[in-house]
Amino acid sequence: MRRFFLDHTPALHEVFTLPPDESKHIGKVLRMQVGESLELVNGKGLVFTAKITDNHFKHCKVGITEKKQFPKDDFHIHIAIAPTKNVDRLSHFIEKSTELGIHEVSLIICENSERKVINTEKLEKVIIGAMKQSKRLYKPILHSPISFDEFIEKHPIGLIAHCYEPEKDSIHKVLTPQNCPILIGPEGDFSQEEVTKATSCNYKSISLGKTRLRTETAALYACAIAKMKFE
Amino acid sequence: MRRFFLDHTPALHEVFTLPPDESKHIGKVLRMQVGESLELVNGKGLVFTAKITDNHFKHCKVGITEKKQFPKDDFHIHIAIAPTKNVDRLSHFIEKSTELGIHEVSLIICENSERKVINTEKLEKVIIGAMKQSKRLYKPILHSPISFDEFIEKHPIGLIAHCYEPEKDSIHKVLTPQNCPILIGPEGDFSQEEVTKATSCNYKSISLGKTRLRTETAALYACAIAKMKFE
Repeated sequence: MRRFFLDHTPALHEVFTLPPDESKHIGKVLRMQVGESLELVNGKGLVFTAKITDNHFKHCKVGITEKKQFPKDDFHIHIAIAPTKNVDRLSHFIEKSTELGIHEVSLIICENSERKVINTEKLEKVIIGAMKQSKRLYKPILHSPISFDEFIEKHPIGLIAHCYEPEKDSIHKVLTPQNCPILIGPEGDFSQEEVTKATSCNYKSISLGKTRLRTETAALYACAIAKMKFE
Repeated sequence: MRRFFLDHTPALHEVFTLPPDESKHIGKVLRMQVGESLELVNGKGLVFTAKITDNHFKHCKVGITEKKQFPKDDFHIHIAIAPTKNVDRLSHFIEKSTELGIHEVSLIICENSERKVINTEKLEKVIIGAMKQSKRLYKPILHSPISFDEFIEKHPIGLIAHCYEPEKDSIHKVLTPQNCPILIGPEGDFSQEEVTKATSCNYKSISLGKTRLRTETAALYACAIAKMKFE
């Protein structure tokens, strides 16, 4: 059944109008008909079955016929990434990590960050597209950018990937299933000072292997390993 | 030191002209000067140190002052992927997997493939860019597209990721470090017939986890797990 995203949580049997984007998709792109069924997800584990009562391409109406709550994962993948200079690279990470099952993305502005401003609205759309694609029921949380220092203060325990000291643990050996944000630095890496700040809190330095990875590739790799380890 | 790619293997002390692309980069983009040193890699584990003897932006000349051979990895990551309808998605996989350390990419045309023709020349350029970025010394092999049947005949042992039977081994449990191509299907998955063909040879069905992944995400995930397991 076709699946659509909903930004509110309707009651059983409620009849309501879908947002313009989804209306257009149903009425114009897919040309779905009155009486056809579809699925709606709210990004919080609820899946609704609904019937189209009006297929107007600007204000499509549906009535909820069924609802079912699905449980959360028992692990939490949280990556804090410095936005890449080229936004497409960050956007690509957001898409892929949503498919892979990430739960939380923080954007951190670091000393070497070349990009300090980012339009999270566009990234939210990427997340919703990838959620539909991958049939995920929980929407990953995307935070607005904050400074590296602020992040460390808010999350005093975690892992930080960087290229400084040669002896570091491999990510898959030290990753824990809860409360363990993985910090991925900007194109020019974290500054030595930032690494010292993090490790003098409760951050462990980690290695992502032998090859030098771009910011978004490093973040994707970390996400893949977490998926493999805990899913 | 700046690193450039070479498609032949010069002798020690040889003086020769670099290809136009690299000449332009050295003479025009970076404005490097006569006497400056640079590194050249041949994609087969050789690293040359060279001095610029002529910095002309169309036919830059260098003389080799040192050469050193680095060993190969003791594992081999080979992914056979059905080219995605949108070429950018395949190109992205090629870039990311090169950074992650892939050794061989085969392109397979399957029953449900929407794209049957592909320009591998452009993908070769993506590989070289990613090699420089990630400081890899061995260039991954990229094969021209062949049919699924031809591939299976050439490689009678491997793993195949698909969405059919519910009980499959997780990729990280069955992946071996050698001679183990991982088959990733097109947007509409492999056909049931293709899966049967593969498993009646020596292919094992594998799962890439709970969420439904796009072709290029599945391939990237497989590559990340192989890197983690063997590197």
